[in-house]
Amino acid sequence: HTKTKKAGQLFSGLLALNVVFLGSAFICGMLFNGMAVTLTDVWLLLATLKVLSLLWLLYYEITTTRKSRAVLHQDPQAGPIWVRGSLVLFGSCTICLNVFRVGNAVSHADCKSHLELAFPIIQIMFVSVQTWVLWKHCKDCMQFQTNLTRCGLMLTLATDLLLWILAITNDSMHHEIRAELDTHLEKSSGNLSSFCVCINNTACLVFQKGSLMLYPFNTEYCLLCCTMLFVMWKNVGRHLAAPARPPPSTPPFRLSGVLGPLLGLLALVAGICIFVLFQIQANGPDIARRYFTLYYAFYVAVLPAMTLASLAGAAVYLLEERELDVLKNPTRSLDVVLLMGAALGPMGIAYFSLVATVATHPRRPLSRLILAYSLLLVLQHIAQNLFIIGGLHRRLLCEAEPARRSSLLDLSQDLRRAYFHSYSRLNWKQIVLKEIALFLILCNIVLWMMPAFGVHPEFENGLEKDFYGYRTWFTIVNFGLPLGVFYRMHSVGGLVEVYLEA
Amino acid sequence: HTKTKKAGQLFSGLLALNVVFLGSAFICGMLFNGMAVTLTDVWLLLATLKVLSLLWLLYYEITTTRKSRAVLHQDPQAGPIWVRGSLVLFGSCTICLNVFRVGNAVSHADCKSHLELAFPIIQIMFVSVQTWVLWKHCKDCMQFQTNLTRCGLMLTLATDLLLWILAITNDSMHHEIRAELDTHLEKSSGNLSSFCVCINNTACLVFQKGSLMLYPFNTEYCLLCCTMLFVMWKNVGRHLAAPARPPPSTPPFRLSGVLGPLLGLLALVAGICIFVLFQIQANGPDIARRYFTLYYAFYVAVLPAMTLASLAGAAVYLLEERELDVLKNPTRSLDVVLLMGAALGPMGIAYFSLVATVATHPRRPLSRLILAYSLLLVLQHIAQNLFIIGGLHRRLLCEAEPARRSSLLDLSQDLRRAYFHSYSRLNWKQIVLKEIALFLILCNIVLWMMPAFGVHPEFENGLEKDFYGYRTWFTIVNFGLPLGVFYRMHSVGGLVEVYLEA
Repeated sequence: HTKTKKAGQLFSGLLALNVVFLGSAFICGMLFNGMAVTLTDVWLLLATLKVLSLLWLLYYEITTTRKSRAVLHQDPQAGPIWVRGSLVLFGSCTICLNVFRVGNAVSHADCKSHLELAFPIIQIMFVSVQTWVLWKHCKDCMQFQTNLTRCGLMLTLATDLLLWILAITNDSMHHEIRAELDTHLEKSSGNLSSFCVCINNTACLVFQKGSLMLYPFNTEYCLLCCTMLFVMWKNVGRHLAAPARPPPSTPPFRLSGVLGPLLGLLALVAGICIFVLFQIQANGPDIARRYFTLYYAFYVAVLPAMTLASLAGAAVYLLEERELDVLKNPTRSLDVVLLMGAALGPMGIAYFSLVATVATHPRRPLSRLILAYSLLLVLQHIAQNLFIIGGLHRRLLCEAEPARRSSLLDLSQDLRRAYFHSYSRLNWKQIVLKEIALFLILCNIVLWMMPAFGVHPEFENGLEKDFYGYRTWFTIVNFGLPLGVFYRMHSVGGLVEVYLEA
Repeated sequence: HTKTKKAGQLFSGLLALNVVFLGSAFICGMLFNGMAVTLTDVWLLLATLKVLSLLWLLYYEITTTRKSRAVLHQDPQAGPIWVRGSLVLFGSCTICLNVFRVGNAVSHADCKSHLELAFPIIQIMFVSVQTWVLWKHCKDCMQFQTNLTRCGLMLTLATDLLLWILAITNDSMHHEIRAELDTHLEKSSGNLSSFCVCINNTACLVFQKGSLMLYPFNTEYCLLCCTMLFVMWKNVGRHLAAPARPPPSTPPFRLSGVLGPLLGLLALVAGICIFVLFQIQANGPDIARRYFTLYYAFYVAVLPAMTLASLAGAAVYLLEERELDVLKNPTRSLDVVLLMGAALGPMGIAYFSLVATVATHPRRPLSRLILAYSLLLVLQHIAQNLFIIGGLHRRLLCEAEPARRSSLLDLSQDLRRAYFHSYSRLNWKQIVLKEIALFLILCNIVLWMMPAFGVHPEFENGLEKDFYGYRTWFTIVNFGLPLGVFYRMHSVGGLVEVYLEA
């Protein structure tokens, strides 16, 4: 049994590896030799992969509904509700983006090829079916045709990964839209251009602005699908030790604490004000420098507070004499890896900013703010990771113990519930931890919201763009920003757990 | 205890991550904006890191000799003799390379800064001390000052990683030498150039040719040090379950088989002939096309034979009814990860070649040969990985069982020795496996030798260089080739194990 499992994992992994390599070579060829390999070639390859994945996803859906014994177990820890919710949110945004692309292609019908109409339509179908199947089946432990399932999952994962690589390196859409916006400006000043212009001007502007705004959700969506497909792939053929056992119920969420939520709400309100100001300004041609100053000043105020709160929380752990849960726990290991991995993105951007700012000898106040922002961002990520990872290893021991007798389990759960309902028994350390966790949750929500909904001063302030060149900085930001958004989402999840278990 | 271990690993890992990010940002800044961040800045950063690592390595050496209780256990599986041998070989080559650099800087003394003399000298000191410490201590399980040791090891690892990143992206040395060689040609044809020329012409030529030839060993050395330091880092604070237990003795090496060794020797002799022809030709200004044809034809002949042999071996595993050893085994997991990871390099090169060849519409016979070569290379890597990984999971079960009583262990080892000494008991499957393993060992040795000692037709044939551009292809080849050499070395190690255990 284990032999076939290992062999199947190896084989499907190799399949994905080869597909990813082939696609990457295509994309690199396009980037460095646009004459020999065109964007259309890359799109053709991706459309083939998408159609294959689509067929497989439909086949999977049909088998699991036909065969009642195909899925015996469900992994209770896979696909929590916030992951599935973000999947649907990002999926809808990606579909909107592609609808805008179709609209853009239709309004330029006289000068664009029909292929440019076909590709977004295939993408819409692929995203819809994938979102639906993942929503429904992300907890499955497939027992039927395991090798075929592994290969299919890996093919879909490779397709998503290639879509992500293309999205973070291919800036042609941005170039095209910018060129066209410039043409509009020229036309209004009287110049006649030979550039392809669209039929309906207002609709075009909506499509183009919308595409630019929805673009980050596309990369976000691909990343999320990759992690969910990976979890499904790991679960193929898995027999859970105790399928009848209920998932460990987390204690109910009850608000406690005063100072933490208040400070967090303050940060939330301030963040929303800056966000609204920035979005209004972003409609103009250029964003005034004082808005950048405002944005960075907000970060420079919030980040040290978050760092100090995380460090204080980590110090409380050291004071506690609670036993550590050091048992092997695959879900927690994946959580820790995702948290650390996602932090690589924003930390990478921060270091690149740092070098760019230092190398250009900052004199302007804005450059100094950016310098402070980058340094504080790195420190904040390190401190928050220490706090969350420490908290995840601090879970109550009764949960880690395997249930020998179900009566004992019930008893211990009842005890825990009673424990959590009696807040009078909370000691000062637990109160401090709860306050800190709530403050960090609110701060992470506002720091998640701002980049997720289109505030990207890293790209628009121009300092790093001039230093590294447009394409390099585009790739760095497009690699790091979606990981940063993912990091904030994931840390909110982790912090909620820390809050509940404190 | 586990709490401090986890915390120490997390903290030292974060330290290394930050150092690597800072260094990468410096290197990227240099690549994309050479005016603001110069190569000297990067060298200064690296020299600082090297001096810090050097001091720490000396401190480690002193503590371990002073404190007799600092290292209680030795990990018997870490640092086998072939790894330590390659460490010394590559280390000496790196030192030679830096001696040549010093010589080059001295002979250009009038037009180069003194810093260019200082950096290779620091590098020589760093490499010597690091090689010495790793040779002596790579099996250590350090018990004393574990957190400091972890941080020191991670600092050294980060330094090696940054040296590797710089080596694979920085082509300035190659540019400089090529420009100077061109100047020599111009001068001999009568033109006077303002370019910096060296004092002693013959010595210069030796230094420059030598630097170009020894360059790949440098990258190889950094990679090897990284893996050894990582193993040492994992072993810090580890208590081995049975320190008194002798390491599992592998059966003695005895040659068996006729057809495999003969075919392998044939490939070896043919490979050496082509290698010598190529090296003689490489002294001329341009390598004639027929030598490339010869080289690729050799590969196109050998690779299918290796693929078929690996697949036949994998088929024999399926026929066997032997129990699989599926116990957790950290050394084997690391072996498998390294084998798969190292295969990424040559497979990446092959896919990039493939796309370049197909996109330029191959008509010439040489292009078609390159196409076949790339495809076969991918297939060979996949098949060989399947064969070796299957073999590693097939170890005799008595080895996997933990020793309850030492008398039982001795008995089982005696039994095993008796088993291996009586070749009459080998059945046909074992004979086939031994033949295949020997053939693959010899083939891998020849495929290791050719790129390791300076035959790089991927770079010199010009097809991919023209397609992707000089710098991109330089980075891809410099990333993939050392990994490919590492892969061949590592598979020889794995195949020897498969041969012995068959």
